[in-house]
Amino acid sequence: MLAKELNLAISTVSKALRDSHEVKAETKTKVWDLAKKLNYQPNAFAAGLRAQKSKTIAVIFPELANSFFSLAIKGIEEVARGKGYHVLIYPTHECKEQEISFAYRLMDGRVDGLMISLSRGTTNYDHLIDLNQKVPMILFDRISDDIDILKVTTNDYESAFIATQHLIENGCNKILYLEALKFTSAGKFRLQGHIDALEEFNLSYNKQLIIDCDQSDQENYYHIKHGLVSNKPQGILSSIEKLATLCYNACKELNLTIPNDVKIVSFSNLETAHLWSPPLTTITQPAFEIGKEAAKLLFQLLDKKQIDLKDENKILKSAFIKRGSSAVCETFT
Amino acid sequence: MLAKELNLAISTVSKALRDSHEVKAETKTKVWDLAKKLNYQPNAFAAGLRAQKSKTIAVIFPELANSFFSLAIKGIEEVARGKGYHVLIYPTHECKEQEISFAYRLMDGRVDGLMISLSRGTTNYDHLIDLNQKVPMILFDRISDDIDILKVTTNDYESAFIATQHLIENGCNKILYLEALKFTSAGKFRLQGHIDALEEFNLSYNKQLIIDCDQSDQENYYHIKHGLVSNKPQGILSSIEKLATLCYNACKELNLTIPNDVKIVSFSNLETAHLWSPPLTTITQPAFEIGKEAAKLLFQLLDKKQIDLKDENKILKSAFIKRGSSAVCETFT
Repeated sequence: MLAKELNLAISTVSKALRDSHEVKAETKTKVWDLAKKLNYQPNAFAAGLRAQKSKTIAVIFPELANSFFSLAIKGIEEVARGKGYHVLIYPTHECKEQEISFAYRLMDGRVDGLMISLSRGTTNYDHLIDLNQKVPMILFDRISDDIDILKVTTNDYESAFIATQHLIENGCNKILYLEALKFTSAGKFRLQGHIDALEEFNLSYNKQLIIDCDQSDQENYYHIKHGLVSNKPQGILSSIEKLATLCYNACKELNLTIPNDVKIVSFSNLETAHLWSPPLTTITQPAFEIGKEAAKLLFQLLDKKQIDLKDENKILKSAFIKRGSSAVCETFT
Repeated sequence: MLAKELNLAISTVSKALRDSHEVKAETKTKVWDLAKKLNYQPNAFAAGLRAQKSKTIAVIFPELANSFFSLAIKGIEEVARGKGYHVLIYPTHECKEQEISFAYRLMDGRVDGLMISLSRGTTNYDHLIDLNQKVPMILFDRISDDIDILKVTTNDYESAFIATQHLIENGCNKILYLEALKFTSAGKFRLQGHIDALEEFNLSYNKQLIIDCDQSDQENYYHIKHGLVSNKPQGILSSIEKLATLCYNACKELNLTIPNDVKIVSFSNLETAHLWSPPLTTITQPAFEIGKEAAKLLFQLLDKKQIDLKDENKILKSAFIKRGSSAVCETFT
């Protein structure tokens, strides 16, 4: 009806109604104006049934109020929007039961594809293997090497190695390592990078210096303080962003000066790390790019349906940004 | 088929498949296990067409990598999940054309309801008035009083008044006000609260001290620096979070010490504001609660379809958190 009235091809009208980038803004305005006048309303569900496509992708991920995941989802959304797709979000709040529940809910054909970053406690992948038989899927950042699904990650091993080396070269012989995500490949690689750097510089690996921080904030805070008091480390390497805040709080409570008494390096995507007192030295993951790469891979999968798993896993590089929290003197900012 | 096999009511199976909180975890597991075995896949689109419901709500909002909106969406998602609803996200990146485009895309029956926080440049509301005829809608935070749609906001006028009073009482006779969101009610109320506090304390209102910060980061930075140099204010009140970072950077570049040379207060939801150097005094909006309230109102609307607009607009209270950036001496932390 719209096509005839406007003397346009049906496919053009259809694309205009979907706000496709293939249609000129001027044409879209014409189509929308007439659609409005005629109270025309294409039904997403009827269209979805016809095409067996929902034009929707979903993201299952651990945490919303987290600078890494906000940036990654921003990247995902940008790619999806370019393709005319809608984005559903499913934050698990680090709860594996929630992750499993979301996975089974998404078997209903609601989405054409899925991106997932594992929750802290996920150790069994049946729900993903089941879902992946129906819905194409990409794992990002919090991945497991135990599943044959395309992955986008960063160079976690190398990053932790470089950070540890930096602390050692700045005089830290005893480094507290705050371990997190121990069931994910990211967590394992970070710890291994740290351990290998210690060995490289002939420092002994001491299990007491590895603090298990896959707990509640309160428990983590207690263990970090206890680790500082009982081990008197000269440095801390925090393997996730939110632990850095606890380190600063703990040092303050214990009257330890950063960096003079304790030097701190953390994985973090906080844009305001340079404003901290002292500015925080960070391993900064390319979060936005990870989201973009994951979405691009997913759309390749949706288009071609076949990609060689081994060739196509992507590993992006994090940046190591030296600031005052790990400096010998206060020359860094 | 599933119901008969498991000797359960059809409605129970249907609820279990939708992961409803009304069904016990044990029953859900039974249903899912059998559904898996039988490769059963209810189709979301067929179900949506039957019920004329999508069980999906959407959020249109300005920015993803922003601590206020991350927290607000977290609140929205929590309420939606409790109701068995899915959440679509549409970040506008402060672009009104993008907002209009999203609004028209959502006329296709894809969502049962919508929450929207206006983009910076939105001055005409036709797209929302059109969409609201088909889709129930709530405005949150960045609202306009020119549209008759239910709203959830904070006490912006009062917050700006209190912050200004605090700066005056700490010796600031000349305060630079960083204006933003000038087309939204939030922006207007914040500025008015500031102006009225100046009058209350017999300080003259000087237009040169109001800096228009609805520009690019680069332009805002230039104008803030220029404002500091030419007006030599003793205080700054920043009406949005991201401008606070620019203030700290500008003071550093100009060798101005915070709080001795310039005192700073900002609207902000950054969880790490207490770690800044010096710790940032903030007006902190209850972002998570705003999201929850907006979603609750939307579901009331979806359930009852009639709420009295005037009675039901919600105004939540922000917290004023004094820290070192606005202190006379360094006693605040």
